[in-house]
Amino acid sequence: MKNLKLLENHQCFGGEQRVYTHDAHTTDCAMRFALYLPPQMVQKSCPVIYWLSGLTCTEQNFITKAGAQRVAAELGLILVIPDTSPRGIAQMATQDSEYLGEGAGFYINARQEPWVKHYQMENYITQELPQVVQELLPQMITAMGIFGHSMGGHGALTLALKNQQQYQSVSALAPICAPSQTTWGQHVFQAYLGEDPDTWNNSDASALIKQYGWQHGEILIDQGQEDEYLHEQLKPHIFAQACEEAKVPLRLRMHKGYDHSYYFVATFIEDHLNFHATALMN
Amino acid sequence: MKNLKLLENHQCFGGEQRVYTHDAHTTDCAMRFALYLPPQMVQKSCPVIYWLSGLTCTEQNFITKAGAQRVAAELGLILVIPDTSPRGIAQMATQDSEYLGEGAGFYINARQEPWVKHYQMENYITQELPQVVQELLPQMITAMGIFGHSMGGHGALTLALKNQQQYQSVSALAPICAPSQTTWGQHVFQAYLGEDPDTWNNSDASALIKQYGWQHGEILIDQGQEDEYLHEQLKPHIFAQACEEAKVPLRLRMHKGYDHSYYFVATFIEDHLNFHATALMN
Repeated sequence: MKNLKLLENHQCFGGEQRVYTHDAHTTDCAMRFALYLPPQMVQKSCPVIYWLSGLTCTEQNFITKAGAQRVAAELGLILVIPDTSPRGIAQMATQDSEYLGEGAGFYINARQEPWVKHYQMENYITQELPQVVQELLPQMITAMGIFGHSMGGHGALTLALKNQQQYQSVSALAPICAPSQTTWGQHVFQAYLGEDPDTWNNSDASALIKQYGWQHGEILIDQGQEDEYLHEQLKPHIFAQACEEAKVPLRLRMHKGYDHSYYFVATFIEDHLNFHATALMN
Repeated sequence: MKNLKLLENHQCFGGEQRVYTHDAHTTDCAMRFALYLPPQMVQKSCPVIYWLSGLTCTEQNFITKAGAQRVAAELGLILVIPDTSPRGIAQMATQDSEYLGEGAGFYINARQEPWVKHYQMENYITQELPQVVQELLPQMITAMGIFGHSMGGHGALTLALKNQQQYQSVSALAPICAPSQTTWGQHVFQAYLGEDPDTWNNSDASALIKQYGWQHGEILIDQGQEDEYLHEQLKPHIFAQACEEAKVPLRLRMHKGYDHSYYFVATFIEDHLNFHATALMN
């Protein structure tokens, strides 16, 4: 917990919405994250759910727009919301692609220059940040789930599938489902991971589910049918097909009229929090 | 409805969150407003509540941060969220006060140069915008309430008190309550209304309640006790004293730990929507 600093603390639905910064060793830079503490924490330990945000987001989007605190306060859930990438590193800021660099860490460990030194988001999310949260809230966490939106929905799926001891529940809203088979995904994987598509499977949710399965029951995915990225970039049917092959129960709900925005996220966030609470409190 | 254009339309909690722009004659410029249509509107007419936002806000803050659509969808309430001032007028943008100009219309009709031509926000909110909404939703509106936050809480109180035939319910979150007796308010009234304090009473909630009373029952105000503006700029006790003198029932709730942010607004928005629904549906 090097240089951990509390930047914000707001009373919210009887709990506390905090924002921290700390010097992360995995990404070798200062990282921000948000933490919601439900009112139940004064009396007992609670489950934690990690929320991974989409492209261009910071830790702020979810905590200001999703309306999750109300439900987390009712259910007694801790929420951790990391930033989506390292920030403030000079040579990264000059990239001219909106799918690479700041706001676009994709929750993977980069292997290519110039990314390899800082863009170790998979290690940051799965190892370093949980340790920081554990030290902040010693003995207060009972179980861990993960969910996210778009790029973060893909992050949640891939990190859960690869760390099934750590995460006991996973869900996603409008996730990228098969990046190896989309233009966004190929662009990103070439830059961060290298040219060889065979090495991409370890960061592709539809490949990983066939490799590892999922040992904790059902996966929940919500998807808007008017989502502008649905057909070209998200492709949930490929993940649904992979779940079928892997015999993993998937509850994929398609919602008429909904787009990719936080209006969609806010509409269905309560269902996701209930889904995780049921999985993590049993 | 000159040049009315739909800028955004998002499905949200089964209803529609829209944003429009139109050329307003009262303010002599293009004005934006947001409109939430609850799912009940396909079957029946509904009450409408106008939300007035605080300093620096646009129509976006409330619709992205307050979490009101969920409750409005449950209760069957239309929400109208205007911008907080005229925008894009060259000579106004050069003002060097954060309490004047763009984002700071204060919901009054300015009488002084350079504001008088465009800053007619009281007429815009009480007359022109309701007409635009009425034309957009003919025969669909049953009753009208008004509420707001901070500067917008004061706007809601003053406009309701002065237009008791039009508004049948009013409430406010952390409102400015007695601007004639605060540094913000005096600064703003001098610029928009002129030097003579006697002319300010017609735009001061604590003066107006003594003059007009309130014919529609109780007024609801929520206020955070850790609000950084509470003691210097908001002063709810002055309004409470005025209500007592005017024999108007005020439910003023002070909330331990809460600040001035939208985390406070989001926490108590459901209570306000329920308050208006009860008043407007009886």
